[in-house]
Amino acid sequence: MKKFINDIESVMRESLGGMVDAHPGLLRVEFEPTFVARAERSVNKVALISGGGSGHEPLHAGYVGQGMLDAACAGQVFTSPTPDQILAAASSVHSGRGVLLIVKNYSGDLMNFQIASEMMDIENATVLVNDDVAVENSTHTTGRRGVAGTVMVEKMVGAAAERGGSLLECKEIGDRVNAATASMGVAFTSCTVPAAGRTTFDIGADEMEIGVGIHGEPGRRREKVKPASLIVDELLHSILADLKPARGSEVLLHANGFGGTPLMELYLLYHCAAEKLRAEGLKPVRSLVGNYTTALEMAGASLTVTVLDDELKSLWDAPVHTAALRW
Amino acid sequence: MKKFINDIESVMRESLGGMVDAHPGLLRVEFEPTFVARAERSVNKVALISGGGSGHEPLHAGYVGQGMLDAACAGQVFTSPTPDQILAAASSVHSGRGVLLIVKNYSGDLMNFQIASEMMDIENATVLVNDDVAVENSTHTTGRRGVAGTVMVEKMVGAAAERGGSLLECKEIGDRVNAATASMGVAFTSCTVPAAGRTTFDIGADEMEIGVGIHGEPGRRREKVKPASLIVDELLHSILADLKPARGSEVLLHANGFGGTPLMELYLLYHCAAEKLRAEGLKPVRSLVGNYTTALEMAGASLTVTVLDDELKSLWDAPVHTAALRW
Repeated sequence: MKKFINDIESVMRESLGGMVDAHPGLLRVEFEPTFVARAERSVNKVALISGGGSGHEPLHAGYVGQGMLDAACAGQVFTSPTPDQILAAASSVHSGRGVLLIVKNYSGDLMNFQIASEMMDIENATVLVNDDVAVENSTHTTGRRGVAGTVMVEKMVGAAAERGGSLLECKEIGDRVNAATASMGVAFTSCTVPAAGRTTFDIGADEMEIGVGIHGEPGRRREKVKPASLIVDELLHSILADLKPARGSEVLLHANGFGGTPLMELYLLYHCAAEKLRAEGLKPVRSLVGNYTTALEMAGASLTVTVLDDELKSLWDAPVHTAALRW
Repeated sequence: MKKFINDIESVMRESLGGMVDAHPGLLRVEFEPTFVARAERSVNKVALISGGGSGHEPLHAGYVGQGMLDAACAGQVFTSPTPDQILAAASSVHSGRGVLLIVKNYSGDLMNFQIASEMMDIENATVLVNDDVAVENSTHTTGRRGVAGTVMVEKMVGAAAERGGSLLECKEIGDRVNAATASMGVAFTSCTVPAAGRTTFDIGADEMEIGVGIHGEPGRRREKVKPASLIVDELLHSILADLKPARGSEVLLHANGFGGTPLMELYLLYHCAAEKLRAEGLKPVRSLVGNYTTALEMAGASLTVTVLDDELKSLWDAPVHTAALRW
């Protein structure tokens, strides 16, 4: 295993420490229990808290800041955060208008966020993200997995909260963005969880996993690598079959790298996908291209489409200042 | 070879096409000959043009936009752009105050930018970037290589040009940033140039190349992988021996991924490096962490330090709006 680490036990602590070192005016980190929060507490707004296993960076701590999250709770690599982390984050960042929990649909995450929700002495609600159309149930999941569409949910709900939306309004926006968003990915290589010390799965030198999850979970099938435009056709076919957008709809198109794929290829994928959407009578009017929801160093990528309306577009366009998204 | 491509011949065109698709209000692309330029021409400022082989994305096209470059000329993967590209870009973006060429020190790039400089019917000057302290001469280089410090040069000169600096002033800033900047990297894996179809070099399952170049050129030596903090010590030792910053100096610290290293590890590297700088009596007051100067999907990273003064700090902090850097 070749990684920039010192000690398997301290990877998460040192990495979160580096994030706060690099963004001192923006972020603070607590370690007992662990969460990352805005350096400056927000006042009089719904507090947004997300979290999940580490290894998907910049998800979620990279989205803490003005216009997105108030706090992010990181578990060990590919391991859910515990209820005490979520409770501590909530108690630290809430400002009297309630707490909205944004949770990717994995059994462990869901259970721990639910326990925290029930134990929490603060009004709260939950948005469950399940944008991955590849498979219905999966290794760690009942129902669809939550993947790269989480960024769209966190961004748009973040803007709604910043504008003063109530807990109920923010929850409704989150559910609406989730329903308007679908994703699917493909992996060329596996990835190595530091504590495991070996790759999560084996894959042939000329094979890809279609519909892979962001922890290397199996997708729909294994097949030989094919040209990018054919991969894009398959991913978008499944995504559009799920979303069924009206002809002429405006969409946000996100080409997400899993960590080991060059940006050059992600822009090429974006190009193929945008052309395909236009050929289907859709209008890709907003974009996001890069490593936003990763699976350590996995080579591969996913496409995400969010069907926009004027409100969602304005929530996407609203100012954001986080480590990983800023405009 | 597993890559998101359709045809080796069209990788660059499709990728640049995707970049402009994703950033339509920001960028335009020309293909005969090839360059990426700001969608909106700047007026009455020194025009900044950089370029080099593809495969280092977001360098250089990701740095075209307000506060940084006016145009970027991309060659095929790891291959210099040709003089006709540079001449076409210059003629398209200059606004009567001269053209500054920002060139990484590789023999091919230098030759082609020099030819363009001589043929150009516009007043011009060149800033040569050679921040890599790993080796003196290298596979494609006489003298030191230009690597991740190029981003600091392009950002700071970009701000100087946007403020109205003359060609001479911008050139002086560029030379000054280059002199104040040093970098060194390490690779865990090789990378595969699409047209070659096989990895650029071989490396053992437990080895790293210390001082690697951004095309996979050999560095100082091959050794067994060691803890991140020891790698950081070695990189910073060489960087600081070159820069010799006065105790108490403020510095910009950049942890750059080569394309295949997770952000989680880059932040961990940043953490180790910031601690080490503080232990040396230096103040890391500005940061940049992520994949900014890549070598396709190579796993590995470099550290870059720029010694700041008030002027350089204000040039770094000045607004920038490009695909890859924005604040």
